[in-house]
Amino acid sequence: MPETTSQTPLRVALLGCGVVGSQVALGILANPIDLAARVGAPLELVGIAVRRPDAEYDPRIPRELFTTDVVELAGRADIVVELMGGIEPARTAILRALESGAAVVTANKALLAERGPELFEAADAAGVDLSYEAAVAGAIPIIRPIRESLAGDHVRRILGIVNGTTNFVLDKMTTEGLELDQAVKEAQALGFAEADPTADVDGFDAASKAAILASLAFHTRVSINDVAREGIRSVTAADVAWAQKTGHVIKLLAVAEVIGPVDDGEISVRVHPALVPADHPLAAVRGAFNAVFVEADGAGPLMFYGQGAGGRPTASAVLGDVVSAARRRLTGGKGLRESKDQAFPVLPAAAAIARYQLRLDVDDRPGVLAQVAGLLADHGVSIDTVRQAPSQGDVAHLLITTHAAREASLAATVDAVARLEPVRDVVSVLRVEGA
Amino acid sequence: MPETTSQTPLRVALLGCGVVGSQVALGILANPIDLAARVGAPLELVGIAVRRPDAEYDPRIPRELFTTDVVELAGRADIVVELMGGIEPARTAILRALESGAAVVTANKALLAERGPELFEAADAAGVDLSYEAAVAGAIPIIRPIRESLAGDHVRRILGIVNGTTNFVLDKMTTEGLELDQAVKEAQALGFAEADPTADVDGFDAASKAAILASLAFHTRVSINDVAREGIRSVTAADVAWAQKTGHVIKLLAVAEVIGPVDDGEISVRVHPALVPADHPLAAVRGAFNAVFVEADGAGPLMFYGQGAGGRPTASAVLGDVVSAARRRLTGGKGLRESKDQAFPVLPAAAAIARYQLRLDVDDRPGVLAQVAGLLADHGVSIDTVRQAPSQGDVAHLLITTHAAREASLAATVDAVARLEPVRDVVSVLRVEGA
Repeated sequence: MPETTSQTPLRVALLGCGVVGSQVALGILANPIDLAARVGAPLELVGIAVRRPDAEYDPRIPRELFTTDVVELAGRADIVVELMGGIEPARTAILRALESGAAVVTANKALLAERGPELFEAADAAGVDLSYEAAVAGAIPIIRPIRESLAGDHVRRILGIVNGTTNFVLDKMTTEGLELDQAVKEAQALGFAEADPTADVDGFDAASKAAILASLAFHTRVSINDVAREGIRSVTAADVAWAQKTGHVIKLLAVAEVIGPVDDGEISVRVHPALVPADHPLAAVRGAFNAVFVEADGAGPLMFYGQGAGGRPTASAVLGDVVSAARRRLTGGKGLRESKDQAFPVLPAAAAIARYQLRLDVDDRPGVLAQVAGLLADHGVSIDTVRQAPSQGDVAHLLITTHAAREASLAATVDAVARLEPVRDVVSVLRVEGA
Repeated sequence: MPETTSQTPLRVALLGCGVVGSQVALGILANPIDLAARVGAPLELVGIAVRRPDAEYDPRIPRELFTTDVVELAGRADIVVELMGGIEPARTAILRALESGAAVVTANKALLAERGPELFEAADAAGVDLSYEAAVAGAIPIIRPIRESLAGDHVRRILGIVNGTTNFVLDKMTTEGLELDQAVKEAQALGFAEADPTADVDGFDAASKAAILASLAFHTRVSINDVAREGIRSVTAADVAWAQKTGHVIKLLAVAEVIGPVDDGEISVRVHPALVPADHPLAAVRGAFNAVFVEADGAGPLMFYGQGAGGRPTASAVLGDVVSAARRRLTGGKGLRESKDQAFPVLPAAAAIARYQLRLDVDDRPGVLAQVAGLLADHGVSIDTVRQAPSQGDVAHLLITTHAAREASLAATVDAVARLEPVRDVVSVLRVEGA
């Protein structure tokens, strides 16, 4: 069965022609011979759905490809590439494409995190592929490695820097000592943050990606509503400086982990700022870069690093999915299904377990440290280290790192600590990850 | 077409039961329910070919599975996993398996680098999959990302730390100031190096992996004979110390790159020690870890990091291939073929282009630096920086970093420099990569 290049082209429909979409269109239009060689048949771009066909687009994209009828276009292709974002009309168009027997490639993390099960069931029912390498961490191949390369292993934990904007902001705060607002302004000026940075800064974007990664790694359906989410808004320049003094950097992490036996435990999925040891591979992820650190039972630690956003990097991941899907149209078969057999229970946020670092302003007099330590012990929170900073006036600064504790007990403990008479302020409570 | 678990098991034959093989056997025997759920059918281990069935093996592996008839076993399975290593009988057994219509999973880098084309043609002819994720960088998913995720992109350069032994040795030299011999002895004592470290220290192992990565990334058949190879035997503690002084670390790199246009250039594939800037992500790869840094046109820089060797990590990669291959047996179709359409010419070693750092001992008198610089200019080798170390006695130490130069011109230049009257010694010549 030697391979020959079939002459019947595979029809590709593109839904959306923004920063990523236009790069995908150019990638298909500019490399017809390479792509045909890799696929085994030519790819034909049969249409591009856009909201405003009269807007300005890259002049290398023929305008006769544009249409406003998204759902109609989605029904007449072999491979439908959805890059519109948002829930509707993306959802309806994808369902239409799957019903018509087309393979679907999407980068729509919000849709996957909210309506993933519905889409995967529709793909299963139609016996076609639904691929989404570009939905998490842009250009970084992370979906395929977790889904296929680790298919014979058990993932224990994922720690991901999956939002480039917040990583840029925290990196600026670290290297230049800026406060959050200033760093966000710099990110906006450089095009790394939106005018309204809520989706990034408050962790919504990272939470979608956490849900997708957890679903995949644990063969369990995790929606964005299962993700405990805390953004970076409360992180101060002082937090960053203290992190450095204790040998850490602050990163916004998407965390997904099994608590208990790897094949019969519960999973915790959350997004929050965390102290990461300076010698952890994630600590070296600078600027707007992304990285996903995976710990698997057999493989041990793995890290995947690269650009998490941007037109060309994201288009690279989309085109990889297009070529793979096209290839499977020709050779028959489909990729690994979304395995959903394990169905780990998802723990509520309060049941998550982590190490914490607390910073307290306390009265600078003997016995206060012992009093605080005693209270933590009473609450079953075990202390790893306590550090007392040189006092300023009559206020001492206590830095307490705990052993692993349930979030609920930690929260109750912090409440009690805050009520202690010599405690003036609980300045910050941050999780420690990767230690 | 809802998925149901077929009751007919898929037969898996294991060729070899060493460090990796026994972990693969245990992985299949210990997780039957998980694997069946991920595949859609049970996997049945039908036999394990070993040379000495009476030797000691893990007691959890039933001895009735053992056979000495490798080729017979290879002919009676749906998936054949080859973990014997070496050329024969691995080659014959793999060809037998492919002929019989079985999918093959192998970690045999030497065989792939030497006889890859023959094996891939046999797999194409039989219409079955030949997978080898574990052949390069152990547990790190790198084959699948390059083959599939980057299938719509153009790879420009790969810089890989793909040999854990030499990375451990160089890391020891860096952190503890050891000479090579001492560091190799430590690696041997800790089980990171063989009693005969030739395959690692002289770069043979890395060269096999470089050939495999280059073949894949550039859709071109590259054999180990195309790889220019230089090991780490000549690297001294002084080289390592000087590297640090100039903001670098020394790593043994597998380099595969396109020189010229990305879709119509020539490729250079080589293994050699190189100076890597201390802030490059590869510089942070410590101990026996591996990492592969990929630069693609669209995706930009990517890095894949993890354990490159060891029974359980390597078995994780093998099992991922087994599950993917098994899944494809059920759903029909095969994976992406080995695309070999591009067929870039492979440059001879002398035509490779790199930046170099030269260290010279010269007479400590005025005009020598100018004389050396003039000679380099005469040979068309452009100087980036020159640094003169404080002299010891009447000898000065010159450290010259060049701009990119062809290896052949550099070699001719170094010969001429060595013949200059005031030059006492060309102490070292090292390439600079990743800058």
